[in-house]
Amino acid sequence: STPIRATLFPGDGIGPEIAESVKQIFKAADVPIEWEEHYVGTEIDPRTQSFLTWESLESVRQNRVGLKGPMATPIGKGHRSLNLTLRKELNLYANVRPCYSLPGYKTRYDNVNLITIRENTEGEYSGLEHQVVRGVVESLKIITRQASLRVAEYAFHYAKEHGRERVSAIHKANIMQKTDGLFLKCCREVAEKYPDIKYEEVVIDNCCMMLVKNPALFDVLVMPNLYGDIISDLCAGLVGGLGLTPSCNIGEGGIALAEAVHGSAPDIAGKNSANPTTLLLSGVSILRHLNLHDKPDQIQNASSTQLQKGSTELLILEVKQRQPSSPMQLFIISKY
Amino acid sequence: STPIRATLFPGDGIGPEIAESVKQIFKAADVPIEWEEHYVGTEIDPRTQSFLTWESLESVRQNRVGLKGPMATPIGKGHRSLNLTLRKELNLYANVRPCYSLPGYKTRYDNVNLITIRENTEGEYSGLEHQVVRGVVESLKIITRQASLRVAEYAFHYAKEHGRERVSAIHKANIMQKTDGLFLKCCREVAEKYPDIKYEEVVIDNCCMMLVKNPALFDVLVMPNLYGDIISDLCAGLVGGLGLTPSCNIGEGGIALAEAVHGSAPDIAGKNSANPTTLLLSGVSILRHLNLHDKPDQIQNASSTQLQKGSTELLILEVKQRQPSSPMQLFIISKY
Ligand SMILES: CC(C)[C@H](C(=O)O)[C@@H](O)C(=O)O
Ligand SMILES: CC(C)[C@H](C(=O)O)[C@@H](O)C(=O)O
Repeated sequence: STPIRATLFPGDGIGPEIAESVKQIFKAADVPIEWEEHYVGTEIDPRTQSFLTWESLESVRQNRVGLKGPMATPIGKGHRSLNLTLRKELNLYANVRPCYSLPGYKTRYDNVNLITIRENTEGEYSGLEHQVVRGVVESLKIITRQASLRVAEYAFHYAKEHGRERVSAIHKANIMQKTDGLFLKCCREVAEKYPDIKYEEVVIDNCCMMLVKNPALFDVLVMPNLYGDIISDLCAGLVGGLGLTPSCNIGEGGIALAEAVHGSAPDIAGKNSANPTTLLLSGVSILRHLNLHDKPDQIQNASSTQLQKGSTELLILEVKQRQPSSPMQLFIISKY
Repeated sequence: STPIRATLFPGDGIGPEIAESVKQIFKAADVPIEWEEHYVGTEIDPRTQSFLTWESLESVRQNRVGLKGPMATPIGKGHRSLNLTLRKELNLYANVRPCYSLPGYKTRYDNVNLITIRENTEGEYSGLEHQVVRGVVESLKIITRQASLRVAEYAFHYAKEHGRERVSAIHKANIMQKTDGLFLKCCREVAEKYPDIKYEEVVIDNCCMMLVKNPALFDVLVMPNLYGDIISDLCAGLVGGLGLTPSCNIGEGGIALAEAVHGSAPDIAGKNSANPTTLLLSGVSILRHLNLHDKPDQIQNASSTQLQKGSTELLILEVKQRQPSSPMQLFIISKY
């Protein structure tokens, strides 16, 4: 059968080496994907003289599925984060981060099983900021009915498809009555169309307190952009960190761009010591999206087995997983 | 010696009953405070026909110290939160929330010892919001040089006075480059005046992940308003919740208004079953502020002993502490 074309942006720093791992693992598992690789990152590509070419965007638009490695976000360098640019250019309106306890990777929390769904295009990420007078600056948080309905609809649809019981909308409408108030209003409207899914509203500060006390109180969480940024990292912390949790961005017309959410770790780049788990599990989320039957489960189980056999120390896991040609890594694949 | 006059706002819901507990405990411990009690809350006071009288504010301004119980914040009722009104009217620019593991109250975390210092007057709490067109709303986040320097100065001063090693400024300046960028710039300026205190900057999402993985990574944290709201609740969750963590608001000219940060719990109000620990420990922070020698330690230790003797179940603790005349409660006091 013809292979499925998918876009690959290896990204910055450790990106290329973890992308290489994922490619090798997918190949060993006979995943019928043919990668279309493009450079997108914070260095200017000497071949294209660009950070991000039109061809790179067009590749995702055509293929409708893609996988991206980490891209550095320079603080205060004046140019826009590439992560944000991709979200806006491709209209990636929902960011889905499942967060579950990994068998074999022990943390203070057991049986975590949360899905955060984050509005990904507006809110506090509008980029609209200015100085009013010297010493007084302001940023605009923008909430629209359209984007709020769209992400709420995605969250409830997701909950239904995945047999989830409840959607919690996270907000601070007691303070931002108009913006977060509109977000809640949209969630309520959508909730009414899904009478079988429970719906609740939780203030963000209280949500964070409850998550660290008892994550089992939550199921699917939907929220504006910045709250999603914060809560998805908090949830990742519950199960071990950003090195273990996948992420997928959903765009209009069914585009799915999965990604590693951790940093580009320039300090360890090139040493083949970075942990590819996040990018691998994000890749797996693409396989699910493509309905590739048993492949996603096979690879996910193999990576769990690997974790279980390994120590609870991430470092040891990393070394074991980072030798593409070693029996250890092939073992992950061949066992299933 | 003449007693010290301090203002007391018992507040809404369970406020009056937990305030009563604190008064009784302070009395039994011979704390030389004379309370000046005023009603501030979400019900109109029939005597004054007001939620908040000028006399109530004036009382805090005169006494310079006060204690407030919970005040309900109605969601979307159109009138401003009383908590916010007090912060603005009294210019309570810094909110200090110490968060430490309580001996005898077991959680997933040991030896937590964090101080969050929150800018309390501006940021996302500006109250400036409007509808741009139908379905598009915006909120303004305002950051000023003056308020940022003031809270940064307070944080470093606090760190120095309390023998703390490090101040971490929490931000999202990779996205809100102008507002959070200005906040960081101010923190850096102040940091230079305190060469003995270590200074670092941590992005809020990463901070939340690290806090749940390893709270010992942090010491004193300083941040804009909403991040402080979120992180102080997260930290409270690490040690057991908002029912156990004190809070004190600092205003210009040395005003200290301590407070219970939990809700007014209308569902259990009037049943004498609410846990007064937060309000009690907040009261203790006033005694420290007033330099009342051994009293604050006495009361704090007594409440720890009580927790240690009690079960780890909060409910049992509550009942034990909520019988002002029972031997149990007098025992807390008389033992020290
Ligand atoms: C790198 C940064 C721009 C990004 C964000 O804030 O969204 C990251 O934290 C994330 O969650 O993907
Ligand atoms: C009740 C609410 C207005 C308040 C806030 O958001 O500041 C509360 O959460 C707090 O932290 O004191």
